[in-house]
Amino acid sequence: MSILAVGSMAFDSVETPFGKADEVLGGSATYFSTAASFFTAVDLVAVVGEDFPQEHIDFLHQRGVNTDGLTRSTGETFRWKGSYSYDLNEATTLDTQLNVFAAFDPRLPENYRNAKYVFLGNIDPTLQLKVLQQVVRPQVVACDTMNFWISGKREALLETLKYVDILLINEAEVRQLANEPNMVKAARKVLEMGPKTLVVKQGEYGAVMFTPGAVFAAPAYPLEAVFDPTGAGDSFAGGFMGYLSSVDNVSDEAMRQAIIFGSVMASFNVEEFSLGRMRTLDISQVRDRYRKFQLLTEFKGVD
Amino acid sequence: MSILAVGSMAFDSVETPFGKADEVLGGSATYFSTAASFFTAVDLVAVVGEDFPQEHIDFLHQRGVNTDGLTRSTGETFRWKGSYSYDLNEATTLDTQLNVFAAFDPRLPENYRNAKYVFLGNIDPTLQLKVLQQVVRPQVVACDTMNFWISGKREALLETLKYVDILLINEAEVRQLANEPNMVKAARKVLEMGPKTLVVKQGEYGAVMFTPGAVFAAPAYPLEAVFDPTGAGDSFAGGFMGYLSSVDNVSDEAMRQAIIFGSVMASFNVEEFSLGRMRTLDISQVRDRYRKFQLLTEFKGVD
Repeated sequence: MSILAVGSMAFDSVETPFGKADEVLGGSATYFSTAASFFTAVDLVAVVGEDFPQEHIDFLHQRGVNTDGLTRSTGETFRWKGSYSYDLNEATTLDTQLNVFAAFDPRLPENYRNAKYVFLGNIDPTLQLKVLQQVVRPQVVACDTMNFWISGKREALLETLKYVDILLINEAEVRQLANEPNMVKAARKVLEMGPKTLVVKQGEYGAVMFTPGAVFAAPAYPLEAVFDPTGAGDSFAGGFMGYLSSVDNVSDEAMRQAIIFGSVMASFNVEEFSLGRMRTLDISQVRDRYRKFQLLTEFKGVD
Repeated sequence: MSILAVGSMAFDSVETPFGKADEVLGGSATYFSTAASFFTAVDLVAVVGEDFPQEHIDFLHQRGVNTDGLTRSTGETFRWKGSYSYDLNEATTLDTQLNVFAAFDPRLPENYRNAKYVFLGNIDPTLQLKVLQQVVRPQVVACDTMNFWISGKREALLETLKYVDILLINEAEVRQLANEPNMVKAARKVLEMGPKTLVVKQGEYGAVMFTPGAVFAAPAYPLEAVFDPTGAGDSFAGGFMGYLSSVDNVSDEAMRQAIIFGSVMASFNVEEFSLGRMRTLDISQVRDRYRKFQLLTEFKGVD
């Protein structure tokens, strides 16, 4: 089962305590698609400018990503510049140039419209809904968003959320969306907004999944070298949705496994700048780290 | 197997977004002993002032805590005043009055000196070592400390750590002790200072245990009502050490179970001010929450 994914493609300039990278490949759709491609085919919807090199598109093709829905517009590609201090959980945005992304008007090619699995990356919720309306019969709709839309386009976001099955956002966003400091209470409020599943991304602390009937908590993989957290959340979502669509199953059991695969993909992604680690990664390493997650978390019952 | 525990006993005044409590029972040794008492007998070493009411000592006796090592000195009991904002991970100390605790000179009664399990609560590392030297043949020594001693009594602390098997401290303290921002690298450095096991307490994010051969990560229990985080770390340590001594086993398997029991005790403790929740808690509720931790964390392997 392939996944339809919409989001941003960008050039990122990033500085961390461990080094810097200039104008490297980035963007939510790029990270998501690449991570998901380890599990399934991806139909990508995004926009780039005239300056976007063919080699990046070739890389996506090699990873099994369909770019029929990738528009090349007149102008420059979206650029983001940010830095991280030792607290790698928090990026400081230094500069944002939306460029062609400002006029992004996602239109789905005919061959995308029968998608069953859909990922609405972090873009204007009005556009997220517009994408969804072009899909004939979506079965599993996952969505990301951010503080900017939660405060600035709340009504549109709440409308979009009515059609979302799985919302993947970070801790601060959950609290902001629910206007409630306690995470468990906030999660319950979010589950009344439409999504049946809420995945709370907690960066270096892992992830917690809330459904009406269960809670599942997974740690992050303890890493000795975190070089660049950029794209960790999108890689997480890519591994999560990629696995779900590969097994075409959204049971509690499958979603717990998907959380671990999401954590695995995020853990690899942060080991190098940009998508560097994804370029050398293979599925056996992914499965090996999944098993390490089992060793990391398992404990015996007591009588 | 009983545990010898040394630490502070105090009157706490605490304010959180959910209420306040004045001059209530607190102190590291109090929380530790009470939590451990659900699993094992505790031999307590601490000091209180003339103002310390008998009812608190009666409470400890009811919980199976031996107070032969509790000294009542001339003067007032240690007092701590603090507040928490919505970020319940971080306490702001408003006032500290050491009172009789300032001259604490722990001397072990004869019947304490054959202890096998020892918990050195967060006191001056010189005193921690002095306690340890009075034990004939300690088998499992656990220790807590804090930023104040890490910076102010570093040499004494490093000396004490040579005799410690299990160090239980929070994340910031690990980084400070190792002078290393990356947790995994910091843990490795701490494991070279003496302890064979490092338990990193992460508050609402759970705990991570490092040994030379393994890493174990456990989430915190997702709670809808956290009233007062005071004593959570000591309750954690009490559950952890209490379980280990009750099974008299420090294998990797037992220590993982002990981490969960520690998390269980911490999760109950924060549900009410002071030791309120511990007063009504019973062991069947403890075991029930242990099973909920299994449901919270379990996931299936993949082929």
